[in-house]
Amino acid sequence: MKKSLIALAVVAVSGAATAQSSVTLYGIADASFGVVKNGSVTQTKVDSGLLNTSRFGFKGTEDLGGGLKASFLLEQGFNVDNGSSLEDSQDGQTKLNQMFSRNAYVGLSGGFGEVRLGKVWSAFDEMKGASNAAWDSGLSPNSGVFYGGAIGGYTYNPRNSVIYFTPNVSGFSGAASYSMGENKTATVNAGRVAALNVKYAGGPLYVGLGHQTERVNGSVPTKKFTMLNATYDFGMATLQASVGRQSQNDLKTRDWTLGATVPVSGLLSVSGGVAGSTDNVAAGDIKRKGVSLAAQYALSKRTFLYTGYHATRTTYPVLPRLNTSLYAVGVSHLF
Amino acid sequence: MKKSLIALAVVAVSGAATAQSSVTLYGIADASFGVVKNGSVTQTKVDSGLLNTSRFGFKGTEDLGGGLKASFLLEQGFNVDNGSSLEDSQDGQTKLNQMFSRNAYVGLSGGFGEVRLGKVWSAFDEMKGASNAAWDSGLSPNSGVFYGGAIGGYTYNPRNSVIYFTPNVSGFSGAASYSMGENKTATVNAGRVAALNVKYAGGPLYVGLGHQTERVNGSVPTKKFTMLNATYDFGMATLQASVGRQSQNDLKTRDWTLGATVPVSGLLSVSGGVAGSTDNVAAGDIKRKGVSLAAQYALSKRTFLYTGYHATRTTYPVLPRLNTSLYAVGVSHLF
Amino acid sequence: MKKSLIALAVVAVSGAATAQSSVTLYGIADASFGVVKNGSVTQTKVDSGLLNTSRFGFKGTEDLGGGLKASFLLEQGFNVDNGSSLEDSQDGQTKLNQMFSRNAYVGLSGGFGEVRLGKVWSAFDEMKGASNAAWDSGLSPNSGVFYGGAIGGYTYNPRNSVIYFTPNVSGFSGAASYSMGENKTATVNAGRVAALNVKYAGGPLYVGLGHQTERVNGSVPTKKFTMLNATYDFGMATLQASVGRQSQNDLKTRDWTLGATVPVSGLLSVSGGVAGSTDNVAAGDIKRKGVSLAAQYALSKRTFLYTGYHATRTTYPVLPRLNTSLYAVGVSHLF
Repeated sequence: MKKSLIALAVVAVSGAATAQSSVTLYGIADASFGVVKNGSVTQTKVDSGLLNTSRFGFKGTEDLGGGLKASFLLEQGFNVDNGSSLEDSQDGQTKLNQMFSRNAYVGLSGGFGEVRLGKVWSAFDEMKGASNAAWDSGLSPNSGVFYGGAIGGYTYNPRNSVIYFTPNVSGFSGAASYSMGENKTATVNAGRVAALNVKYAGGPLYVGLGHQTERVNGSVPTKKFTMLNATYDFGMATLQASVGRQSQNDLKTRDWTLGATVPVSGLLSVSGGVAGSTDNVAAGDIKRKGVSLAAQYALSKRTFLYTGYHATRTTYPVLPRLNTSLYAVGVSHLF
Repeated sequence: MKKSLIALAVVAVSGAATAQSSVTLYGIADASFGVVKNGSVTQTKVDSGLLNTSRFGFKGTEDLGGGLKASFLLEQGFNVDNGSSLEDSQDGQTKLNQMFSRNAYVGLSGGFGEVRLGKVWSAFDEMKGASNAAWDSGLSPNSGVFYGGAIGGYTYNPRNSVIYFTPNVSGFSGAASYSMGENKTATVNAGRVAALNVKYAGGPLYVGLGHQTERVNGSVPTKKFTMLNATYDFGMATLQASVGRQSQNDLKTRDWTLGATVPVSGLLSVSGGVAGSTDNVAAGDIKRKGVSLAAQYALSKRTFLYTGYHATRTTYPVLPRLNTSLYAVGVSHLF
Repeated sequence: MKKSLIALAVVAVSGAATAQSSVTLYGIADASFGVVKNGSVTQTKVDSGLLNTSRFGFKGTEDLGGGLKASFLLEQGFNVDNGSSLEDSQDGQTKLNQMFSRNAYVGLSGGFGEVRLGKVWSAFDEMKGASNAAWDSGLSPNSGVFYGGAIGGYTYNPRNSVIYFTPNVSGFSGAASYSMGENKTATVNAGRVAALNVKYAGGPLYVGLGHQTERVNGSVPTKKFTMLNATYDFGMATLQASVGRQSQNDLKTRDWTLGATVPVSGLLSVSGGVAGSTDNVAAGDIKRKGVSLAAQYALSKRTFLYTGYHATRTTYPVLPRLNTSLYAVGVSHLF
């Protein structure tokens, strides 16, 4: 049951008896109106989170003295168009009723870097969106193109995780995460997700390298994800590019993206690009391509109008090819 | 994944870099203790939301300058008696795990009126409770009498909606909403909910007219709901009345309610009335009637004691008639 | 639908029209890293709530004048390791999607004591953890030892409840709660949970006596739970002990626990103990034993590092005995 507060348990902490609360309630409500074409079916839709996943959260940081800080973050995704909870995407794991489907962790940070314990973005999650044009969103060229291939789903923000972030040293930083499947039985080992990233960010240049391995449990072949990405800010525009590969035994996928983001004015920004992915499967290659062009306009520091076009094409060895497209206008409001 | 905040994406917004948060946490906890009779079964119960649906929410408004405002509202219903989430009521739609089952929207308002995008009260929802005695609650005479008839359920606060509110011009105002079913297939068109209201409120008089059409999808007959309602404040009492009709092809329902609310003192208010509904079905008419009397007493500006009696009778052409009744006392606390 | 706020219904409450909001957002994020052994399977895990169940809540108190206060509390449990909602544990009741699985109530308090209506800790819940070593947590010696026996599950924080707390008179206080099953049918009476406690706390001594009866419905034999517990603060250490018994017709269980908590310094506290439980079943006795040793260190008034060891052994008349153990380190952060 654990009703009693730990604060009452340790009696003699000096000073005032009442713990000072320190929590920030924050979030994003992002709604859009669009026309979605999926093969031969076209319909108009109200959607959520096209530019930024709609979310709310509670977070806080406490200074413990001596450079040490405690922090926590609890964040739930939701669909502002229908009010529903967002579930997490966990390959081979039981569905759970999610209260904080995006992030839920306690962290300690100091000169040594930072450690977080809970449900966190993996070290691969933490780098793999950095070079996606159109602000790493549902309007990015790689949306619906990456991670839907031969080896199946990628596990975002894995459960039961610990992640370590190094301090930033002359622009270099890194992170390593390990997530436990906790599904060990007498005969089969537990699954796990392990990930690593190394980044450099200095002046106009960002470069990142990430790697993630996943296995559902000890009797399923391991999936491997690798990505190298980079951005360069020329002032007039920022160029963005990545190359990646995924594999699970003989199944292999290669992907890439190329884009640019142009700050037209202090308030208006335009971004677009292309992305591709190729699966090597026995029957022949499956190819997915995506193209995007999007713009956002700042009504204020926390309210943004946006519009964008995104299309994908998937070409199969035998099956007819599949086209999708999306044109939408929306508003993203931060609180 | 869309991790990055849009605020970081648009670099050059002038002024301080940090977005100022502006969110209000609000809600109602409404618990009651009552005796409920349903046919031959009588039991005592603790219930939730009898006077005001228990709820919590996050909301905020941001002044964008030039008379333009951005707003958001995220509101979840719950049962304070058992801690459970309230789901929404969507005719023919998939059940979803609801995070914000009541409202979830982003809005922009200005001289032109207001537009909201997300999950909102339809234009019919926005007017149809205005003349219900006993504060449009579970103690209202029409509770359990309206919208349970021949044509089946009414869709409250539909998903995937856009609603437009006109400005108030000399007491006149209106609203129109459209909600997309988003269930189109290659052979069947998507469902939708479309609604409209026109209101006049001036001095002691309120009059409203509303209309809503619903179809689950393109192959199901459309349901139509219409209501005319009015209230008149005589000072000693406010009279409240409505007439409505619903139809789906040959199935037709007519309903009405009549009530009064009396401000006995600054703290005590009493309200009651009657309501009726008649279905025209092949085998003969199904008639439902409701009667209510309720009172609330303000312990403060945000804490209210209430008590009330509500009974319904349903008469069938063949089946024996069904009686229900409820007597309860409760407390409604706003925060 | 009940959209309208009750604050608008009672027009003439004197003073400013706007209700002042008063709500505190609070919670605990508790994450740990440990090695768990269950029979022959050992695995490392990230867990949630080992010292204090991870939770968040909204609460508030309003002074109504004349010594009367209104209050509310809405509290949800969650797992910080995977972001999932915690459900409640209700013997024989339908599972519900929980929004506030721990507590959800409105209360009124004054010179007469306090009444709460909603989902509350029963009067037995309110006393039964008071003597558990290791801060009544997942590291307590009785964890996994109590309430898993012959008569099956105990119903924590029952739904549809009313609880009354007496005022504290010279150290004596008591509480009584009643929770309605609300599952009455034409032929079977509803279930219920009824509980009572009496406590004395004065100087170094605490003594409590509690009793709870549960029945799923009128045709299922009643379960009875009784516990006597006490703690005595010797300064150097606080001794903690309890004896309890449960029964359902011929099925009987006896349990006990014994422990001590030592405040090593103002910041460090160590606690440990043993617990046992014996079921009298037809085939012979089933015996469960637990042993624990734990420590917590206050990094601040609201951030705690902890570590602990907990082991249980269950001995069956025929089946081989089952051992479990847990060693963990964690952090508990209050906000």
